Amino acid sequence: MSAKLQPAARVKGNRKDVWSIINEAAAASPNQPIVNMGQGFFGYNPPEFIINAAKQALDRVECNQYSPTRGRPRLLKALADAYSPLWGRQLNWQTEITVTTGANEGMLSAFMAFIEPGDEVIVFEPFFDQYISNIEMPGGKIVYVPMHPPKEGGVKTLSAAEWSIDFDELERAITPRTKMLVLNTPHNPVGKVYSKPELEKIAALCVKHQIIILSDEVYDRLYYVPFTRIATLSPEVERLTITVGSAGKNFYATGWRVGWLIGPQELIQYVSAAHTRICYSSVSPLQEACAIGFEQAPSQNFWSACVTDMQQRMSRFNAIWDELGLPYSQPEGGYFVMVNLSKVALPADYAFPPHVAERPRDFKLAWFMIQELGVAAIPPSEFYTDANAHIVEDYLRFAVCKTDDVLEDAKERLRGLKKYIV
Amino acid sequence: MSAKLQPAARVKGNRKDVWSIINEAAAASPNQPIVNMGQGFFGYNPPEFIINAAKQALDRVECNQYSPTRGRPRLLKALADAYSPLWGRQLNWQTEITVTTGANEGMLSAFMAFIEPGDEVIVFEPFFDQYISNIEMPGGKIVYVPMHPPKEGGVKTLSAAEWSIDFDELERAITPRTKMLVLNTPHNPVGKVYSKPELEKIAALCVKHQIIILSDEVYDRLYYVPFTRIATLSPEVERLTITVGSAGKNFYATGWRVGWLIGPQELIQYVSAAHTRICYSSVSPLQEACAIGFEQAPSQNFWSACVTDMQQRMSRFNAIWDELGLPYSQPEGGYFVMVNLSKVALPADYAFPPHVAERPRDFKLAWFMIQELGVAAIPPSEFYTDANAHIVEDYLRFAVCKTDDVLEDAKERLRGLKKYIV
Repeated sequence: MSAKLQPAARVKGNRKDVWSIINEAAAASPNQPIVNMGQGFFGYNPPEFIINAAKQALDRVECNQYSPTRGRPRLLKALADAYSPLWGRQLNWQTEITVTTGANEGMLSAFMAFIEPGDEVIVFEPFFDQYISNIEMPGGKIVYVPMHPPKEGGVKTLSAAEWSIDFDELERAITPRTKMLVLNTPHNPVGKVYSKPELEKIAALCVKHQIIILSDEVYDRLYYVPFTRIATLSPEVERLTITVGSAGKNFYATGWRVGWLIGPQELIQYVSAAHTRICYSSVSPLQEACAIGFEQAPSQNFWSACVTDMQQRMSRFNAIWDELGLPYSQPEGGYFVMVNLSKVALPADYAFPPHVAERPRDFKLAWFMIQELGVAAIPPSEFYTDANAHIVEDYLRFAVCKTDDVLEDAKERLRGLKKYIV
Repeated sequence: MSAKLQPAARVKGNRKDVWSIINEAAAASPNQPIVNMGQGFFGYNPPEFIINAAKQALDRVECNQYSPTRGRPRLLKALADAYSPLWGRQLNWQTEITVTTGANEGMLSAFMAFIEPGDEVIVFEPFFDQYISNIEMPGGKIVYVPMHPPKEGGVKTLSAAEWSIDFDELERAITPRTKMLVLNTPHNPVGKVYSKPELEKIAALCVKHQIIILSDEVYDRLYYVPFTRIATLSPEVERLTITVGSAGKNFYATGWRVGWLIGPQELIQYVSAAHTRICYSSVSPLQEACAIGFEQAPSQNFWSACVTDMQQRMSRFNAIWDELGLPYSQPEGGYFVMVNLSKVALPADYAFPPHVAERPRDFKLAWFMIQELGVAAIPPSEFYTDANAHIVEDYLRFAVCKTDDVLEDAKERLRGLKKYIV
């Protein structure tokens, strides 16, 4: 190719990502069809009242044309009504909320709004992988702070709460260039819901150093212990906080690409300006359906049904680990479970392809399970820097947002692990 | 606000944009409801077969979850089938097409894929305003080349073909840093369809200097004269060309946010990588509906109906200009018409608000028409640099993709211009 046609550095020559590796492995597995417990898409549809709302929106001319760049007024109002009680004050739908093309593009919009080249952003490991490219796109520098798994995670099942931050380590990561900190609670993949005291410590550092907190709370309707939203700790913290939400996660519709950000007008106005430049506006008929989803969720008892339903799936699936004697982090929220497979001995002479052989042990575990059992899970070392990847090399992440049939099929196949457990 | 919370330069303190000015003026007009001929959204729904396809997709679990980041295979295949005959060769759906969140995010993805800070991009004036922020986001520098309206555009109605590029001016704009050139045909707002000889001259310069051509062809199903796609001129040109399409424009659904880019694998792979980082994936159920739209459009005779239908709207609406004796550029494609209002004398003592008074005459014309007649149109000097804004200060852009009732209402109101015509 002519030198003049070269791509920009931001898209050039990245290492093969975990999704490609796992999807290609799955396609090549002799155990077809494989059971995909990897990616966090739902194995079932959004509830009927939301699907019907989407169908009705499709019949309305204005619901098929451009929405205002900030979002449809009906959705913004529904979000203000839904979140104001959780915030303990009335949110202003015209100034404090902006709708984006999924939470992903929402977070990119926030980074684009505030990051100048060289600004630093603190990200905890393990991280959601899209954070990285989204921070790097406007020229941000990522400063990583690892979460530490419980010391006994390899021998007993403990609460995901036991994954911890070293607050001295966090404080040492702050420099005069620290512009933002990314929080994720309930946490993917760990399943931890940050406790109020933990959030207070993080918030105190952010207030002291005036760091913008981008709180990714896309699993905010799926928590099994008390859930604190960092924005609600105090007015000083709220001034610094942008909270991210997702219709895809709330309504079992990861393909709908509707998300939102909530925060003070002084911050949200710039997020909204960035979003306008990135996507112009977001998908209209599905915004309308989400508005109706929020309006009707309380009377449909939907939010509490979500929790009960996901807890049942979680218990049903995790029974296999209890049966096999493999420890896991008992999730406090979300729909992922991190399982510790240090007791699984991979055959010494097993032939891994080079792009798997060169990665940490969790990639080998994932590859082996896909090939031998036909069950796909995600190796979480992808979500750590190379220096810290060893921390999770015995873990795999499983998504339980699947039908009972799929969960049972996965469990039956996972019984095949028994002969490798030492 | 704390200095540490300042937004990035890319979103800070821009001049109020034309959409805000016109929408706010419309909301404040005494002539309510106003007739909005400004923004190019459709006043009617997508055809029934596509709406039904969207509803059916909503019933399918996999159509509500993440699609592959490059797009749903069914849509990619349908696009390959639809465009291969127009390209004169079989397009590879797996490597030569990528689906994006509307054409807008598609173009941003293309700029993100190729532009390094300081790289230059040639853009013709008038331009679609989103190009500018999309080029600036990765650090690109825009080099403007004006289109020139016909000299007699103020006194007679001429074909939009008469708007011309000065090819010497274009060649002088090329430097060793020129990385991309943005083309738009059929052209918004001018209505010009670039002729084959014009495209050959542009293409020859791009081949000579190895400049990537980003051809925005979102109105590619609405042309009233022969339409040439620059990618099809020769293999040398195709190697350099990324063609942009839009389901919003093709299927009367500007709120669906489904677009695509077609080009050689060597270029498309990086556009796709950038798109993954920006939006991850695009809206699933509406991608499925668009796939079915492309599959069924030929048997539904939809593409030819589009042309006939829009030509009828165009003729119906433009009759008012003939009646008033105001000249316009007879569109060769698309759904906008540029009308020359140099004969309209604005009252000398008319009170314009400061943010309108400081802009060129077309902003005053637009403001005046909204206030006095209740008809909104777009002042096209927004789509020129300040230095060249005078070129179009007598023009206004009207969108005719509206129902007959709206068009007739607009015409009736526009008869009120008569007393100001000198």
